[in-house]
Amino acid sequence: MDGAEFRRRGKEMVDYVADYLEKIEQRPVYPDVEPGYLRSLIPTEAPLEAESYDDILKDVERVIMPGVTHWHSPYFFAYYPAASSYPAMLADMLCGGIGCIGFTWAASPACTELETVMLDWLGKMLHLPEQFLAGTHGHGGGVIQATASEATLMSLLAARCKAVRRVQASNPEQSEGEIFSKLVAYTSDQAHSSVERAGLIGGVIMRKIPTDDSYAVKGEILKNMVKEDKAAGLIPFFFCATLGTTPSCAFDHITELGPVCNEENMWMHIDAAYAGSAFICPEFRPLLNGVEFADSFNFNTHKWLLVNFDCSAMWVKNRADIVGAFKIEPLYLKHENQESGLVTDYRHWQIPLGRRFRSLKLWFVFRMYGLTGLQAHIRKHVGLAKEFESLVRADKRFEICAKVILGLVCFRLKGSNELNQNLLKRINDSKEIHLVPCQLSGRFVLRFAICARATESQHIQQAWRHITQLTFELLQEPDH
Amino acid sequence: MDGAEFRRRGKEMVDYVADYLEKIEQRPVYPDVEPGYLRSLIPTEAPLEAESYDDILKDVERVIMPGVTHWHSPYFFAYYPAASSYPAMLADMLCGGIGCIGFTWAASPACTELETVMLDWLGKMLHLPEQFLAGTHGHGGGVIQATASEATLMSLLAARCKAVRRVQASNPEQSEGEIFSKLVAYTSDQAHSSVERAGLIGGVIMRKIPTDDSYAVKGEILKNMVKEDKAAGLIPFFFCATLGTTPSCAFDHITELGPVCNEENMWMHIDAAYAGSAFICPEFRPLLNGVEFADSFNFNTHKWLLVNFDCSAMWVKNRADIVGAFKIEPLYLKHENQESGLVTDYRHWQIPLGRRFRSLKLWFVFRMYGLTGLQAHIRKHVGLAKEFESLVRADKRFEICAKVILGLVCFRLKGSNELNQNLLKRINDSKEIHLVPCQLSGRFVLRFAICARATESQHIQQAWRHITQLTFELLQEPDH
Repeated sequence: MDGAEFRRRGKEMVDYVADYLEKIEQRPVYPDVEPGYLRSLIPTEAPLEAESYDDILKDVERVIMPGVTHWHSPYFFAYYPAASSYPAMLADMLCGGIGCIGFTWAASPACTELETVMLDWLGKMLHLPEQFLAGTHGHGGGVIQATASEATLMSLLAARCKAVRRVQASNPEQSEGEIFSKLVAYTSDQAHSSVERAGLIGGVIMRKIPTDDSYAVKGEILKNMVKEDKAAGLIPFFFCATLGTTPSCAFDHITELGPVCNEENMWMHIDAAYAGSAFICPEFRPLLNGVEFADSFNFNTHKWLLVNFDCSAMWVKNRADIVGAFKIEPLYLKHENQESGLVTDYRHWQIPLGRRFRSLKLWFVFRMYGLTGLQAHIRKHVGLAKEFESLVRADKRFEICAKVILGLVCFRLKGSNELNQNLLKRINDSKEIHLVPCQLSGRFVLRFAICARATESQHIQQAWRHITQLTFELLQEPDH
Repeated sequence: MDGAEFRRRGKEMVDYVADYLEKIEQRPVYPDVEPGYLRSLIPTEAPLEAESYDDILKDVERVIMPGVTHWHSPYFFAYYPAASSYPAMLADMLCGGIGCIGFTWAASPACTELETVMLDWLGKMLHLPEQFLAGTHGHGGGVIQATASEATLMSLLAARCKAVRRVQASNPEQSEGEIFSKLVAYTSDQAHSSVERAGLIGGVIMRKIPTDDSYAVKGEILKNMVKEDKAAGLIPFFFCATLGTTPSCAFDHITELGPVCNEENMWMHIDAAYAGSAFICPEFRPLLNGVEFADSFNFNTHKWLLVNFDCSAMWVKNRADIVGAFKIEPLYLKHENQESGLVTDYRHWQIPLGRRFRSLKLWFVFRMYGLTGLQAHIRKHVGLAKEFESLVRADKRFEICAKVILGLVCFRLKGSNELNQNLLKRINDSKEIHLVPCQLSGRFVLRFAICARATESQHIQQAWRHITQLTFELLQEPDH
């Protein structure tokens, strides 16, 4: 395929994508396929000779689309949103065209520098404390990670490195292995599975902290656990707070937790993967109060800030902590500006070496929406969640299971877990809307998350009519 | 920006990308900017209100392009190639449009299933042993990682988990921390920096094995190191072989190393990040002989197989090893098919949770090029490297520093390291071509890697004329 054909096919693809998104409501949100459906639809080997592009495009509808869960359908209410917007897609096309790999400053200066400045822009949008910004003289700064999982892991590894150095400074005879076996990290029992996984990868104990009746961690309980662990000869070194948990969008009490971490010389990382985007609105910014105590903070612009996956924004107060943890300098990656102190080599900030020019997506989205446009998007979603909450509250058969703060509503039928499992199965089998469950205080709960950019009041109303219709049918059955 | 405007702007962007790539030779391959150049060119904060798209596009030329290292210029010979092709870009546009996050089968069945089948297609193209393929009943299978760094880390972590379980099975009283401190991994002293980094992250000792005069690891030396470490009470558990090292494209002797690993119950991972693509050509496939001894194998299709970053292909012989290492099952990620044994949940195979629909890029590229077209691309690059090698060999002032096997030529001026450092500085300062150095046996060496898809004989000839011109000027100076 040469440039001329790409011009033609690329324009067709632009139309295909626009058609897909404009007519996405007409597709069943959840696919009707069985595991293994795809293998029999295509050959068992790659073709020897080139095929025609028309055949490939036909196969997109024949092979791919029947198996897609349509995350951007206005009837998709599962997990948390995956952001998508046209400006981000345009930036991604440009990113693919430039195709640079920005592991060091020299590998493509624009790739590194735009990222640093965009993370400063975004940090200012969130009113992050100045210490988290790079500016021209700061010690902090931001980086784009692929996912929140990687941000959590990087912060835990940086904290582990700091803790080992600190212990070895006063006890030089202790081996790294000995110290590892005493290191203890903490997180909420509501934290994302990736936090537990970061502990496994890092080879440290990860304690789950019991939450209060709003599913949030309080300062006192962390303080007591740390005290007990220290008394047992262990070394508390890391706490991962969550702002906006995955099950119920609960907010840990970081204004209480931060001082405990600071006193105990523990790294506090804040995972606000979903909720972070909301902090650009003044009315939600108080949820972030306490960030001043944190060492690192992260949220996914690719969840709720209209930037297509992947683009997880992470800031650290002291970039030397993260860079120093894993700096390895082979000659083939050295460049003459690296010792100047003026440049950032993002390869030290992340697990992978290679990286795409992802900051273009932030730049395009910030400029094409403006802060006002982005705030309007957040507010619309929160409003839709409140609308759904009102519908649930008005139906006495149902209950709301957690305070609705942002765009997630946790609800259930009053009754057994089995009843709610049956309801969810009927909902998802019908494929008109798509939800996933969570567990709160041992109860099986349905999560209704406002996800798609195109979701409007009419879709919320339709979803609720559908849920109540299925509820009616379920409760009619002799078993109930 | 609505669908109508996206249609218009998207088509403009297709033309912009095609123009960029068709006229890329006219741009200086390496940018003429100083660290910090970008910050002063744009505002210090995001705009409050939306801006016009025309202004953004103008800024791409004003702000971004002056700071881009043009990896797809035919005069870019640095690092290793970053793959790029029009079919891959089309697939990436589709991927962005669908915008699904494929962490489990249910999150988008097509995303998971196409990936499994494409990795089978690719495995067959490489003639990987059957055990590495998923098929319908296999225990092995492939996965797309973002980068080779992550593939190495995942294999080391899976090996670490297996080793801990094995030790604890016979010594249940040993803590994980105690075992970690005895675990030893091995790799070549020529291995990529990411291998050393994987050891740091995993908290295990990573021994660097001295290489022979072709910069490759031999079986005997690993055997002896393992013997010594075992005698010292340590636990050898992992060896990362390299096929096509970063400094000189050397190939470890895996037919000797594999049996040592198998006998010693050590996981053998093969990192063929760059060279792996060449194994689709029968004449280069013998370089992969010995893969039958490996537990995992990885290479970057985004280096040399015309698939845009990121798309690193990894296979394991026993997927239970990798899945079992970090399986955590929160309710919100459960789905009814996961226990059927028929589905793959790729979230267990990787560090991040989220993942893009990257297999579309493989599907488009394999079908639009055909195996024959991909082989032709590899052969063309190898031919160009041989052409450059001949030019160097014909000039008695220069020497070739490592056997030229694929698309990389390591060469230097006969003389001091300082002389060669000066030559490289002149080359890169001129910005007509771009190279990076490496160190081989203590000598400063220039690496000339065939990188861009558009590189032809004329560019090689021009690059050599340029290098010899700068050499002439350098050697004219009074110092020499």
